[in-house]
Amino acid sequence: MTHGFGPVAPPDTQFRAAAEQRQAQLTKPAGALGRLEQLGNWVAACQGTCPPKQFERARVVVFAGDHGVARHGVSAYPSEVTAQMVANFLGGGAAVNALAAVAGATVRVADISVDADTDPRVSEHKVRRSSGAIDREDALTAEEVRAAIEAGRAIADEEIDAGADLLIAGDMGIGNTTPATVLVASLTDTEPVAAVGRGTGVDDAGWIRKVAAIRDAMRRARPVVKDPVELLRVAAGADFAAMAAFLAQAATRRTPVVLDGVVVTAAAMVAEDLAAGASAWWLAGHRSTEPAHELALRHLRLDPLLDLTMRLGEGSGALTALPILRSAVAALAEMSTFAEAGVSTSDAEPASAPPNLRK
Amino acid sequence: MTHGFGPVAPPDTQFRAAAEQRQAQLTKPAGALGRLEQLGNWVAACQGTCPPKQFERARVVVFAGDHGVARHGVSAYPSEVTAQMVANFLGGGAAVNALAAVAGATVRVADISVDADTDPRVSEHKVRRSSGAIDREDALTAEEVRAAIEAGRAIADEEIDAGADLLIAGDMGIGNTTPATVLVASLTDTEPVAAVGRGTGVDDAGWIRKVAAIRDAMRRARPVVKDPVELLRVAAGADFAAMAAFLAQAATRRTPVVLDGVVVTAAAMVAEDLAAGASAWWLAGHRSTEPAHELALRHLRLDPLLDLTMRLGEGSGALTALPILRSAVAALAEMSTFAEAGVSTSDAEPASAPPNLRK
Repeated sequence: MTHGFGPVAPPDTQFRAAAEQRQAQLTKPAGALGRLEQLGNWVAACQGTCPPKQFERARVVVFAGDHGVARHGVSAYPSEVTAQMVANFLGGGAAVNALAAVAGATVRVADISVDADTDPRVSEHKVRRSSGAIDREDALTAEEVRAAIEAGRAIADEEIDAGADLLIAGDMGIGNTTPATVLVASLTDTEPVAAVGRGTGVDDAGWIRKVAAIRDAMRRARPVVKDPVELLRVAAGADFAAMAAFLAQAATRRTPVVLDGVVVTAAAMVAEDLAAGASAWWLAGHRSTEPAHELALRHLRLDPLLDLTMRLGEGSGALTALPILRSAVAALAEMSTFAEAGVSTSDAEPASAPPNLRK
Repeated sequence: MTHGFGPVAPPDTQFRAAAEQRQAQLTKPAGALGRLEQLGNWVAACQGTCPPKQFERARVVVFAGDHGVARHGVSAYPSEVTAQMVANFLGGGAAVNALAAVAGATVRVADISVDADTDPRVSEHKVRRSSGAIDREDALTAEEVRAAIEAGRAIADEEIDAGADLLIAGDMGIGNTTPATVLVASLTDTEPVAAVGRGTGVDDAGWIRKVAAIRDAMRRARPVVKDPVELLRVAAGADFAAMAAFLAQAATRRTPVVLDGVVVTAAAMVAEDLAAGASAWWLAGHRSTEPAHELALRHLRLDPLLDLTMRLGEGSGALTALPILRSAVAALAEMSTFAEAGVSTSDAEPASAPPNLRK
């Protein structure tokens, strides 16, 4: 199926090189800020400017959707919590709200497939009520998966056109670690038992039901695993299709992204299949406790910034990591050079000496 | 030698328990914010209030001091860089300045033993010019170590009296990873070669000189390793004595601290020996690339928040971690409870049901 995405060009290597050169002139031993330096250089390459600019409009979009498989006892929570949490996001009382405020980001909620009527402010791009129960039926029709992809692309475009200079996808949906695990285990060819986690905290009996549902869905996914759109349609859901398109479109539009947990990273794996090279525009915010998340990060060759045993979704891990990226930008953009500060360099020649006297 | 510190009472267990209880009522699966929840609970216990308050006056004090051992080729930089960097801190051009701005902290610089005259704004507590070359002489006299301890204690008192609700110690001093490694290796009974790192980036020949200097200093330290004040006097320096006293006094005054890299954590090991129990008031901000840092963290049983291959000092690692602590406070203080938000709990009973109908 055509989806309109093509290969994605990487961040600008020239500005990355300029950033590397600038790092060497700043008043610190070469490389002493470690990974912060690499992050700053990456932002310069993404922005096509050196020094990079601090993010002025970092934006989280929480993609909300229900999943028919949740009726099969795979989650500790009932599906109505999805719509209740959407209301909580709008009321400002969820983790994503508190963490976004600290990180200097703002929150948008997009109901893609919640199994309830939600506030018109968030349902503009709604595709359907709930996705199908993937252990026994397709998540979506062909038309619905196309609509969900268009929704994700449109949301990315809307945000970038409104000035977003950093994007985060978050997720909300009871049961959504089940399709996430189906995607990750299918695309990494992993046995279900090695990939399935507790999600929101399902008990042992629920975990066994979850493994069974995932095994059934993986069997249904097998014939379409090489076709990202079909994989989303058969074995994931509208929220996953929208997230994947959002992530692919952000990269296409040269906008950096901080990835969150297993749900978003599962969608990111599909996004990389939709738009080869997109992952160069993504930073892994954290490693969650879901085993499938580690599999997905390794598949995408992404090294997460944080490892704080978080497992909430909503964009919470990405938001907790965002200040680190801000720190990296601030160091590269705001620090003085040896010459500016009159600090001696490591070869013991004073930086304030005339340039022609220096190595 | 008497030093005026006694055992330190731990953060308040009652408020920690109240925070744990509150975490269970917030609109998220129990434990889903992972380590953020533990951090938030720790802050509540430190502050003696639940929910905790966001930090309003987070303060970094960079302790600057030179070391005679730097003349023995153990560093990639000449000693005059210490005073140059002090000027850079005051000019706002160093990493600590850029990172403090992102973290919402302010910076104070304290010249404890810089081998140059510095700005009167920072030299109020100066003890001497440079500490002695610890590989062949005592770092300080008995009077000087007492003065340095008083300086650190006074600085902590000044900051806390001025309203600081979170403290960070940073370090600046060419050659200072050498005494830091002497302290850590002596207190953990580790072979020098297993503890010595590259500091600011010394070359192979310099590393060999550094190992030799550390071995010599450790031999001089051995007779006094059980006496924290004597250890600081013989084998560390005035900046270390001030940092250790600052960290011990912060704990005594029930003020939480985020620790930085190997230099500060080495001082922290001594501070714990000065004031038993002080480490309960400290959070490890990061793990640096210096091998002695990992040894010190393990000795203090502190699990660092970040592992970003940083090795700059100045408080840079602690400042990069500080937003995570802010995130933890924000989540615990600002999120709605299930009842407030009308979100169903995991046992599927609506949270809006009267309390007497709920488990």
